[in-house]
Amino acid sequence: MKPIKNKVVLIGAGMVGSSILNSILSLNLVAEIAIIDNNKNKAEGEALDASHTTSFSYNPNVRVRVGDYKDCADSQIIIISAGPSAKPGEKTDRLALAGKNIEVMKSVMTSICQYTKDAVIIVVTNPVDVLTYYAQNNFGYPKEKIIGTGTLLDTARFRRILAKKYLVDTKNVHGYILGEHGASAFAAWSLVSIAGVLVDNFDGVIAKDKSPLNREEILNEVKEVGNDILKLKGFTSAGISMSVASIVRAVLLNELSIMPVSITLNGEYGIEDVALSIPCVISDEGIQKKIEVPLSEDELKELHKSAENLKKILKKFEIC
Amino acid sequence: MKPIKNKVVLIGAGMVGSSILNSILSLNLVAEIAIIDNNKNKAEGEALDASHTTSFSYNPNVRVRVGDYKDCADSQIIIISAGPSAKPGEKTDRLALAGKNIEVMKSVMTSICQYTKDAVIIVVTNPVDVLTYYAQNNFGYPKEKIIGTGTLLDTARFRRILAKKYLVDTKNVHGYILGEHGASAFAAWSLVSIAGVLVDNFDGVIAKDKSPLNREEILNEVKEVGNDILKLKGFTSAGISMSVASIVRAVLLNELSIMPVSITLNGEYGIEDVALSIPCVISDEGIQKKIEVPLSEDELKELHKSAENLKKILKKFEIC
Amino acid sequence: MKPIKNKVVLIGAGMVGSSILNSILSLNLVAEIAIIDNNKNKAEGEALDASHTTSFSYNPNVRVRVGDYKDCADSQIIIISAGPSAKPGEKTDRLALAGKNIEVMKSVMTSICQYTKDAVIIVVTNPVDVLTYYAQNNFGYPKEKIIGTGTLLDTARFRRILAKKYLVDTKNVHGYILGEHGASAFAAWSLVSIAGVLVDNFDGVIAKDKSPLNREEILNEVKEVGNDILKLKGFTSAGISMSVASIVRAVLLNELSIMPVSITLNGEYGIEDVALSIPCVISDEGIQKKIEVPLSEDELKELHKSAENLKKILKKFEIC
Amino acid sequence: MKPIKNKVVLIGAGMVGSSILNSILSLNLVAEIAIIDNNKNKAEGEALDASHTTSFSYNPNVRVRVGDYKDCADSQIIIISAGPSAKPGEKTDRLALAGKNIEVMKSVMTSICQYTKDAVIIVVTNPVDVLTYYAQNNFGYPKEKIIGTGTLLDTARFRRILAKKYLVDTKNVHGYILGEHGASAFAAWSLVSIAGVLVDNFDGVIAKDKSPLNREEILNEVKEVGNDILKLKGFTSAGISMSVASIVRAVLLNELSIMPVSITLNGEYGIEDVALSIPCVISDEGIQKKIEVPLSEDELKELHKSAENLKKILKKFEIC
Repeated sequence: MKPIKNKVVLIGAGMVGSSILNSILSLNLVAEIAIIDNNKNKAEGEALDASHTTSFSYNPNVRVRVGDYKDCADSQIIIISAGPSAKPGEKTDRLALAGKNIEVMKSVMTSICQYTKDAVIIVVTNPVDVLTYYAQNNFGYPKEKIIGTGTLLDTARFRRILAKKYLVDTKNVHGYILGEHGASAFAAWSLVSIAGVLVDNFDGVIAKDKSPLNREEILNEVKEVGNDILKLKGFTSAGISMSVASIVRAVLLNELSIMPVSITLNGEYGIEDVALSIPCVISDEGIQKKIEVPLSEDELKELHKSAENLKKILKKFEIC
Repeated sequence: MKPIKNKVVLIGAGMVGSSILNSILSLNLVAEIAIIDNNKNKAEGEALDASHTTSFSYNPNVRVRVGDYKDCADSQIIIISAGPSAKPGEKTDRLALAGKNIEVMKSVMTSICQYTKDAVIIVVTNPVDVLTYYAQNNFGYPKEKIIGTGTLLDTARFRRILAKKYLVDTKNVHGYILGEHGASAFAAWSLVSIAGVLVDNFDGVIAKDKSPLNREEILNEVKEVGNDILKLKGFTSAGISMSVASIVRAVLLNELSIMPVSITLNGEYGIEDVALSIPCVISDEGIQKKIEVPLSEDELKELHKSAENLKKILKKFEIC
Repeated sequence: MKPIKNKVVLIGAGMVGSSILNSILSLNLVAEIAIIDNNKNKAEGEALDASHTTSFSYNPNVRVRVGDYKDCADSQIIIISAGPSAKPGEKTDRLALAGKNIEVMKSVMTSICQYTKDAVIIVVTNPVDVLTYYAQNNFGYPKEKIIGTGTLLDTARFRRILAKKYLVDTKNVHGYILGEHGASAFAAWSLVSIAGVLVDNFDGVIAKDKSPLNREEILNEVKEVGNDILKLKGFTSAGISMSVASIVRAVLLNELSIMPVSITLNGEYGIEDVALSIPCVISDEGIQKKIEVPLSEDELKELHKSAENLKKILKKFEIC
Repeated sequence: MKPIKNKVVLIGAGMVGSSILNSILSLNLVAEIAIIDNNKNKAEGEALDASHTTSFSYNPNVRVRVGDYKDCADSQIIIISAGPSAKPGEKTDRLALAGKNIEVMKSVMTSICQYTKDAVIIVVTNPVDVLTYYAQNNFGYPKEKIIGTGTLLDTARFRRILAKKYLVDTKNVHGYILGEHGASAFAAWSLVSIAGVLVDNFDGVIAKDKSPLNREEILNEVKEVGNDILKLKGFTSAGISMSVASIVRAVLLNELSIMPVSITLNGEYGIEDVALSIPCVISDEGIQKKIEVPLSEDELKELHKSAENLKKILKKFEIC
């Protein structure tokens, strides 16, 4: 089937899916969005509500509608945000969540594969590294066409927190959170810079009058802010949906943007048979390239620790 | 105090407020957003979540943060979406909602007036016409600086429904839903056009192979779709938040855009002492002008019926 | 060959082509642009200059480069702005221009047809109606995939002039200039409206304190402003390039937008064998539909006059 | 006088000014633009042409018009692109250009100062460092409110060239060209990175199969490409106008973006009494902060060489 230009399928219309829908619409570069949810009412409600935004002067005449898996056949991008999310305080239940969502993913991937192996798939559902690994290695779908959002959101939070501390535009803060999207995520401090200035010099150069940078504190804030938002507003949506929208744009415009996203490693950094986030080049074909950035010895250890953590879960669920 | 360029205060961070926040961010023309909510946690959660979106390449470095009423002093725009919303099936309780939200509005407007009478205020809370009237006539705030979102959303829905029927870009469908944002809203069919073609000719000219236009059906769909969305997804958010964002842009860019919004009439269309939606010109000062479009006799009757309905509520609550 | 998503070929890199290039870049929805010009230096200069804009934060990583006709094979859109333009004061030489540009078009269309009959072609070169007719009827290229910019620019000017007179947003002014993009263009006044108000009521309803609308004066201004700009700045660029960009967006997003563009009529309005502008629906396939709007008797006469004028030229050059 | 929100004055409507006008319009965040040019016809032609772009659906209803210096009184930003530009092959005549444009700047700054010392001024006219110094030090205008575009364009070119070599998104290439916007500009290689990877590792990490990075070649290309474009298309416009638009956005949205722009140094890097480009934080007040990035010894020498070069010109014209 001829691929329809700029068509997206969104699977899962919960709080996160709903927010992703509206973030993607605000890109102004999608022509058609088909929404799939087991709860057809939810999908219909989101489609109707979002469709009304297309009447305003600056908004494209996007067709937003309820779809089904047949819509995958001619889509460029499929976004998977189906399955239950973490609830406030549920931290301890991550394994239970993994169990449920592996089942969800099995059903979703099986359905997608009936119609296409060409679309770029973006995996959002948590635990994202586990599900990305599962999706990349069990359905014969081209691995590089599956992108896990991974630590892209953590990275956005990291940059925002540093930008706020040093009072500069977030877009001038560079650096990545890598590894697991979860407890073992770490900051690759050796690669962090503002205006080309490396982290050791932030306090002397970027700001002279601030309290000194406390790396541990910053990393904790990055890791905790997601739970904080869960507790404060009951769910997180804006940050993750903008992460997805950024990947969508990079794919549709074939931007070759470098983003930290989750992918199964195959010997890179001395790691294999597990998916976690490293900097990758995103093209219209998905992950065009994994970049092996030079990490410090400590950072490399952290990456391996992340890999071990994740492998344990993969083994527990017998998916590796 | 010197007005801060492109600063917005958002009062009310519920499902609608949260969605407004993200729609306004997607305009890419606001420099600062301060969020106020009685539930400080909710405000903090929304501010944190939204702030993370500013790290991505295409997004401005907006300061999104929890604020308080002092922030109104140097803001250009204040958006009021505080107070409880209709819940699925609560149609019959609109009066109870009115009672509660008049109290909310009293507190909000009193607080705003301590700091400014210069900002343009956008009233979103329902019943919007009742609350717009109340805000415009009880606090000495310049009436034309208060804009009720009114039937702007109904109008967007109306255009979307016609655009879908005739398979054309929504932006080519013109026409307004006027009167009450609620049961007595009506379509000003005599002003409706697609590509300059008036409604009587839609079936012969815009489409030759469709079922004929059933005006009553269309109007019912416009009126019911809000409740449908409530039932289907539990709340409405995308449509109303894009309505607000459209007003925000028209104000910040002084666009002189014509939109159907709620304002207290003062003899226009032979009506006074009630607020309802008619086409108005929006500038950086708020409602620059009310336009008295030539309505058919029947349409004029509908407008008066809307006015009577609303006056009854105003009297019940002794606010006129 | 697999069509490359969001790829555009631009043929002709003169003052108009250069401006089109930058307008299309500013849409933020094109992934690749290939520029063709007989003067390879000019193409190279424009490609280099434009490519530097992609380094800024809000701009996509578009590949802008010199191309050749092979690039047409996998493009979605081809824009033809090749050939000499009218110079200030050259009004009388329109026929000479036609002669030269028919030769240019012959060469361009022949080259394109070697590689594709799938891309949507946008004809910008003047006299646009003559060249659109020639392109649509002499190369076996699907007619509806060729769009002449026609009176889309005149229409933009018309709306701007009315918007300025009545102090409203241009986006609220509806109505079309139809027929020839040139001396015999006319305003379809019976379809003109602001906020649903028809033209007879502008002075009483939209503005009460302005000098009355002089339709002839407005039409003259629309027709003369192009020559005025030629005289004042030596060439016209911004208006025409935004016209092209609007068509590009409508095609890439499959918007079904209604625009007055030039196409060969085949009995519509009782006219055939000539190309001129009528309202058409633009999709990702080109002109999806010609709309026969109900014109007044006088307006219909004007349209036929336009057709006669154009047919004379077509005959003079023996291209019909 | 009350500052009008989002109002810009553009002084100089030549090829560069014309291009700046359209780049600023494409930001979609300016409400009013007043154009001043000694050649009133040119200003009028540009205003008319640009005004027609406002009729299209996605474009704001900006007022674009001919203005005069009174318009500076309530503007937020004033852009100076007046005065003759370098012509192809005129490289050797830079001094003559300096002489002429100092006179132009004297007249422009004197006129501006009659109406405001509050607006942020962006100096584009070349030699930009000489003219920025002259403007900052001779009219009592707050220095930090005057921004010379400096090496912002050279930096964009530098990033584009590296992005093309390594096939990544330009937005992932970081690093600056600093010093004079001209012959003595240099790349601060020690601060250059892609995805956090420093320049020494580009060949091994970002690409393994490319010819090795030749820094001298890259710098030469950066310096020559401007002249190349001059020769190829007769003028440069797109790159410089996007540089200006980026500054305009950073100011209007108070983004705190870090950009290499020209400003008079006052001891920073051991240099004073000369204007050249170093990384600066841009806010709504202009240059909020000069950043003293840690340069290598060689780079620091280059910066001082740039300063010496520029001081010679300042002395020749007796403006320091």
